[in-house]
Amino acid sequence: MSLVVVGSVAFDGIKTPEGEVMDALGGSAVHFSLSSSLFAPTKLVGVVGDDFPSEHRDMMKEKGIDISGLETVEGGKTFRWVGEYSADMNSRETLSVDLNVLGGFDPKLPESYLDAPYVFLANGDPSTQISVVDQMRGNPFVMADTMDLWIENRREDVEELLTRIDGIVINDSEANLFTGDHNLIRAGRSIRDRGLRYVIIKKGEHGCLIFYDGGEVYLPACPLAEIHDPTGAGDSFAGGLMGYLASTGQRDLESLKTAVAWGTVAASFCCQGFSVDRLEKLTFADAEARFQQYAEMLSITTSHKPAVSKSTS
Amino acid sequence: MSLVVVGSVAFDGIKTPEGEVMDALGGSAVHFSLSSSLFAPTKLVGVVGDDFPSEHRDMMKEKGIDISGLETVEGGKTFRWVGEYSADMNSRETLSVDLNVLGGFDPKLPESYLDAPYVFLANGDPSTQISVVDQMRGNPFVMADTMDLWIENRREDVEELLTRIDGIVINDSEANLFTGDHNLIRAGRSIRDRGLRYVIIKKGEHGCLIFYDGGEVYLPACPLAEIHDPTGAGDSFAGGLMGYLASTGQRDLESLKTAVAWGTVAASFCCQGFSVDRLEKLTFADAEARFQQYAEMLSITTSHKPAVSKSTS
Repeated sequence: MSLVVVGSVAFDGIKTPEGEVMDALGGSAVHFSLSSSLFAPTKLVGVVGDDFPSEHRDMMKEKGIDISGLETVEGGKTFRWVGEYSADMNSRETLSVDLNVLGGFDPKLPESYLDAPYVFLANGDPSTQISVVDQMRGNPFVMADTMDLWIENRREDVEELLTRIDGIVINDSEANLFTGDHNLIRAGRSIRDRGLRYVIIKKGEHGCLIFYDGGEVYLPACPLAEIHDPTGAGDSFAGGLMGYLASTGQRDLESLKTAVAWGTVAASFCCQGFSVDRLEKLTFADAEARFQQYAEMLSITTSHKPAVSKSTS
Repeated sequence: MSLVVVGSVAFDGIKTPEGEVMDALGGSAVHFSLSSSLFAPTKLVGVVGDDFPSEHRDMMKEKGIDISGLETVEGGKTFRWVGEYSADMNSRETLSVDLNVLGGFDPKLPESYLDAPYVFLANGDPSTQISVVDQMRGNPFVMADTMDLWIENRREDVEELLTRIDGIVINDSEANLFTGDHNLIRAGRSIRDRGLRYVIIKKGEHGCLIFYDGGEVYLPACPLAEIHDPTGAGDSFAGGLMGYLASTGQRDLESLKTAVAWGTVAASFCCQGFSVDRLEKLTFADAEARFQQYAEMLSITTSHKPAVSKSTS
């Protein structure tokens, strides 16, 4: 089944302890699509200026990504972001942001997108995210991302968004901020209580938590000895997750867990290259090998029962 | 098979956001034994003063813990520790330490302990830890814990210790400190390169990493909405781990993973009570139920293969 993603398309400037790059292809919708398109036909919605080169469009088309929903503003400039990561890459500082054409982004979905059964709303203005849900027909499975900016300044709209979607993918610090609770398990439960089917809290190198009707699942990240650039990890995680779900047509917990595992694998590849470098080259066979390794890593032998004995020997 | 643990026996004063307690039974050997004795006959080595009440001895004996290696120093006082946890309980401050009889602790293992095939050296002076290895007969499987104090001040002895044991259980910040590497995967590999069969890095609420010949395994913690007191979590983790291994007589990776899962479960119960309160009441049936839940949480369905399609639909 097909999948719509609405998000940013950007030129990124990135500095990490492993190197730096300027004007690299980036943006949430791009990282998401490069990941999701490994699994399911992906329809991208975004906006660029006329400085956006045709080679990037060609690359995305070649990956099977439908970019008929990528709007080009004549005379406009593409969104630019420049950031620098800390030594351990667990935090980053934004050095500059030029919203450019993203500032007035008012997505209009092409007719051919409106019946897609899966939708992902990457981080963005919550009113814009709601306007996308309003455009969709049928009863798609919708997940969204958000960030501290919207939680702090547009809380009512974020609360409204949560009543319109099936699930949210959110960072740990944002879940703490949103709920005022430092315990992530209580925070996730509290967010889910707003009527969501699923809440997924991303903890970066520490994996993620899934909150569902009946409990929580904690799945770890892939252990990585070399991280080149974490930019886009969260979006490629969401791409693998939603792409897998769309490929199966399922929405149940067991499918979601498997989807999160695929997302975890996609995010791990994302971190192993600068910008979209590694994702762009990622084949399904590469991803599948790491997915099998991940599932095996987590498999615990339960057949051997310890002998319960209190006698000394 | 039986298991020897050498470590502290203490009176703990603990303050967390959930409450406080003074002069509670604590110490690494106690938390370890209460956990390990669920699985295997446990022989404790430690020292107390004559202020140590018989009710604590009786409780441990009732749990099947062999305390013939618990030395009592007449006229001496038992080790005391007082600490306070931060609001999120991820860090703590030591308010006072009175080493008392632990200061001159020179463990002499009873004859009946010397052939035990499993040994755990809880955090302590590395020379004392080595002296215990020297006393053991046969070829026991030995794991040890250490801390920043010894890494900073007694590095040579810690390095020597690593050449005498099979595995180490160490906190994330201590692994970073020991290796000077902020990437935990590289840090764990570097510690293992000293000749250890296994390195286990504990990440608290984020679970733990296992380093073995051929790679790494990352297993998460049990998600907990209520944490009362994390004191002793690391030692009860090690207790569950070593206790399970001793109960099976195995040392291979698959057994170690299952052992880490049992340790994770034991640590989660430890955090749900003050001091040893929850561990003292823990039954094997309670632990087994949570272990099954944990193994199920980590089980990923791999049978459904996503349809790899690049055509739009």
